[in-house]
Amino acid sequence: MAAAPKVLAFDVFGTVVDWHGSIVRELAALAPQVDGDAFALAWRAGYQPAMQRVRSGELGWTRIDELHRLILDDILPRFGLAHLDEAQRASLNRVWHRLQPWPDSVAGLTRLKSRYLITPLSNGNIGLLTHMAKRAGLPWDCILSAEVFRAYKPDPATYLGVAQVFDVAPDDVMLCAAHHDDLQAAAACGLRTAYIERPLEFGAAHIKDVSPQAGNELHARDIAHLADLLGC
Amino acid sequence: MAAAPKVLAFDVFGTVVDWHGSIVRELAALAPQVDGDAFALAWRAGYQPAMQRVRSGELGWTRIDELHRLILDDILPRFGLAHLDEAQRASLNRVWHRLQPWPDSVAGLTRLKSRYLITPLSNGNIGLLTHMAKRAGLPWDCILSAEVFRAYKPDPATYLGVAQVFDVAPDDVMLCAAHHDDLQAAAACGLRTAYIERPLEFGAAHIKDVSPQAGNELHARDIAHLADLLGC
Repeated sequence: MAAAPKVLAFDVFGTVVDWHGSIVRELAALAPQVDGDAFALAWRAGYQPAMQRVRSGELGWTRIDELHRLILDDILPRFGLAHLDEAQRASLNRVWHRLQPWPDSVAGLTRLKSRYLITPLSNGNIGLLTHMAKRAGLPWDCILSAEVFRAYKPDPATYLGVAQVFDVAPDDVMLCAAHHDDLQAAAACGLRTAYIERPLEFGAAHIKDVSPQAGNELHARDIAHLADLLGC
Repeated sequence: MAAAPKVLAFDVFGTVVDWHGSIVRELAALAPQVDGDAFALAWRAGYQPAMQRVRSGELGWTRIDELHRLILDDILPRFGLAHLDEAQRASLNRVWHRLQPWPDSVAGLTRLKSRYLITPLSNGNIGLLTHMAKRAGLPWDCILSAEVFRAYKPDPATYLGVAQVFDVAPDDVMLCAAHHDDLQAAAACGLRTAYIERPLEFGAAHIKDVSPQAGNELHARDIAHLADLLGC
């Protein structure tokens, strides 16, 4: 590896926390008759189209909390949950603040923090990411979010924004993510990239292909392995 | 006290960290012939006028790192330090990233964090506040800064911005600060307020009047006392 990066910026949903498993577990408690796997996938599938409504200008700047709620209201009838009242919907929507970290995340990030500045770089809003970190013990040095830059990934303003915030060059920043499209967009801005394998991101019934792709500087089995690779 | 606040937002320069003492100590090492007390006061005195240049539109949005540097370049000749080269100026300017916490700050914030969401609300930029927190061990849950809101305190966008980020009412947020003007501006936005005594903010040669003023909900001797008052 060339000179060590100064800042490690992490994608969060799927990379640091297990959105699929967390939603399945909460739904099992709230509505055990519902197919939690299908519900989690449907909610997440609405995410890119919802952000596209903002990017296209159909919606003004909107935080992910509000986008999650729009999608939730849309899918509830499909799963026989149209009867949920306002308080129940608001509470369920906050599941995204309560997502559980993968088993290696807290210990791996803690090791990395000893040597690098670590921050999320997520489309999740600041409040969501802060509540999640406080609850799960994610030891971020700060909280960077699409909300800070008023743009969603993969807008270059987000990746370059991290470098600007810390007054470093783009290649002093390494994006760490379980998604190749996120990493490719970061690399196009001059950031360095580390792929994190998360084969269970979409649940055990939908194992994700995590084989290496060319172009990433590092390829790690999980965040503990990333800490190994980065000398922590 | 009425219902407990949900979020404690802290002013930082003077309230959590000792800018005067930190600058005096660094200058004593760099240039022992210079009057460090006068130098620290001159640097800080340039701060409000520099922000005013941004508020008035004379300068576009500018981070405090850059404002500190403008002021530094301006005062160096007055103190016989015009010979400092670029690297020395850049390094000295980063003293604001290295400010030392008051002796009670880390332990007091750690107690408060167990029960409240704690964040800075400072005109310092995100990078400055993050480096400071990492170095000093300030256990913030996130980093909120004028840079997030693109406005300096006492602009209402900063105080109300904290409430908006966490989707709470203004009176769910308590501003904790050693400066009555900051607290008054927050109260005018509906925030609750706690005054923190910092009689040594301007150094032992310039003891600050810290007597209580009407209008603040809490008046604390330091952050440990604030934790007592807030039941932590």
